[in-house]
Amino acid sequence: MKYISMFFIMFIALSCKDQPNQISKKNTNQKNQQFALVIHGGAGYIKDLPQDIEKVYREKLNEALETGYAVLERGGSATEAVRQTIKVMENSPLFNAGKGCVLNSLGKPELDASIMDGKTLNAGAVAGVSHIKNPIDAAVLVKDSTRHVLLSGKGAEEFCQSKGMKLVPESYFITEKRLRQLKQIQKKEHQTAKNHLSYIFNGIKKYGTVGCVALDKAGNIAAGTSTGGLMNKQFGRIGDSPIIGAGTYADNQTCGISCTGTGEYFIRTAASYSVSDLMKFKKMTLVKAQKQVIDRIEQLGGDGGMIGLDKNANIAWYFNTQGMFRAYKKSNGEKKIEMYH
Amino acid sequence: MKYISMFFIMFIALSCKDQPNQISKKNTNQKNQQFALVIHGGAGYIKDLPQDIEKVYREKLNEALETGYAVLERGGSATEAVRQTIKVMENSPLFNAGKGCVLNSLGKPELDASIMDGKTLNAGAVAGVSHIKNPIDAAVLVKDSTRHVLLSGKGAEEFCQSKGMKLVPESYFITEKRLRQLKQIQKKEHQTAKNHLSYIFNGIKKYGTVGCVALDKAGNIAAGTSTGGLMNKQFGRIGDSPIIGAGTYADNQTCGISCTGTGEYFIRTAASYSVSDLMKFKKMTLVKAQKQVIDRIEQLGGDGGMIGLDKNANIAWYFNTQGMFRAYKKSNGEKKIEMYH
Repeated sequence: MKYISMFFIMFIALSCKDQPNQISKKNTNQKNQQFALVIHGGAGYIKDLPQDIEKVYREKLNEALETGYAVLERGGSATEAVRQTIKVMENSPLFNAGKGCVLNSLGKPELDASIMDGKTLNAGAVAGVSHIKNPIDAAVLVKDSTRHVLLSGKGAEEFCQSKGMKLVPESYFITEKRLRQLKQIQKKEHQTAKNHLSYIFNGIKKYGTVGCVALDKAGNIAAGTSTGGLMNKQFGRIGDSPIIGAGTYADNQTCGISCTGTGEYFIRTAASYSVSDLMKFKKMTLVKAQKQVIDRIEQLGGDGGMIGLDKNANIAWYFNTQGMFRAYKKSNGEKKIEMYH
Repeated sequence: MKYISMFFIMFIALSCKDQPNQISKKNTNQKNQQFALVIHGGAGYIKDLPQDIEKVYREKLNEALETGYAVLERGGSATEAVRQTIKVMENSPLFNAGKGCVLNSLGKPELDASIMDGKTLNAGAVAGVSHIKNPIDAAVLVKDSTRHVLLSGKGAEEFCQSKGMKLVPESYFITEKRLRQLKQIQKKEHQTAKNHLSYIFNGIKKYGTVGCVALDKAGNIAAGTSTGGLMNKQFGRIGDSPIIGAGTYADNQTCGISCTGTGEYFIRTAASYSVSDLMKFKKMTLVKAQKQVIDRIEQLGGDGGMIGLDKNANIAWYFNTQGMFRAYKKSNGEKKIEMYH
């Protein structure tokens, strides 16, 4: 509760756009490589949640965070930490990824995910899959076992099956709550066409994509993102989450980034890659680069947020929505779980 | 066999990377806005074609070029010029786009296309469509008539149909020549797995994607790309062509770009967007920026090329393959049609 009042005061006093959220201390040129993990569970109109709902989210964010952190702590790779972390969130119906994802205009799940390894710039992604329990696993499989970066639809599913992955029925993903929300939004969209880029979730207008960025003991960065896209989206729509350079990017030389929001604006601005370029070419800090990109997205009419970390384990997040589910943990002991501004 | 040995010798003898192809004269701060159009029909091991084949390509490139140029000349928009130009190439079986596109591992056509308007940064794209005669028309439709940037597969086709577009059977795209090539490469790939990122076309190893960038009389830039992807590709594979920031980018403040090559490397480097950033942040000329991006792609193991123009109607192309079908025409009278280095 302490946090809530603090953030509420901050929200009134400050414009969030003017206060980049550089939230971890600097950590430059250390001999012992720090490791760190940062996650998000979507951005949107998240404010003053009922205590019981806040608790449930806080616990799940903590579980995801600790799962990935444990991978890093025992010397696992950043990509493996990202994969394990995102799986926890995909398996929870709290987020718009994996089980309990939002539904397209036909009432079907269509999931996207991507992962990128900042050491090699190798990447893998899937788009529009409806029978893969953990799309992030499929993204890893594409990265490691094909000559391709992005596979879509039935082709992606058949490939995963050929590699021994068991497919699940569409019903696995569909929850009663999401069906109700779809009906609500379809009714609402009919009434107000302008409301089409968001959806109502527990009374909260939000983009529930999940993402994770990790820096491992070897100094390698990885980033990943997983989503069900937009509620009531056009069948076949691909957003920014499976697009390397838009929703996900990682480069050991600069940073790792995972985004959430109105994906189309993140594609048009090559959002995650842009952050990397601003750090490389304009020598910006991570958070300043994030702010510049989100500001540009806002100018174009989009909203959302992003998380990231740089090669020195500096962690930053930035969003132009009311809130974003987010958390991080670093090997120097710092840890935070936040939701509001 | 003649070609193979010839290309092998060239491959040893030449490094094409040292010769940036800034091919048009500078044109800065003119009061009367110049207009211009640049196109490509794919890059690859293109050298010393038989005269009759060269003639056929030259004529078709000229037809595409003049079609788009005429749109600009009569005051049409850059996006319309790009659309009309690409349609000419899609309708020709000479290129790997539209009719006569390469076939996936199942022997089916799967087409991708994208278009971007550099004034508004609006963009549209389709991926994995098999029943749309002109995928570039579908990309324009997505740009102008949806809230989305990228639609894929059946969802994209159903959307186009709902907007009055007539679908075509898969057989429309499939030529005898492509079926033969598929069989050849499937046999060859079985023998040498390393050969998988290219295909043989008329005895020429090349990526036959088509693209166009235009600058109109109003000073607006647009870029577009259309492709059948890679011969014998995994069913469901999406390359760089429909990815805004990878295969296609346009921004009035910097440049417009269309790419061709091993698409996965163009995705991982956000190739087309990178050129724009290098011009913006490093004050590079268009061709220097292109060279830097293609060099990076080569370091990662990829090959291909790109065309582009900047807001001052400077035109440039760059490629690390033996050749690229390419041409441009400017309102100051300059015109070129080239294939080789």
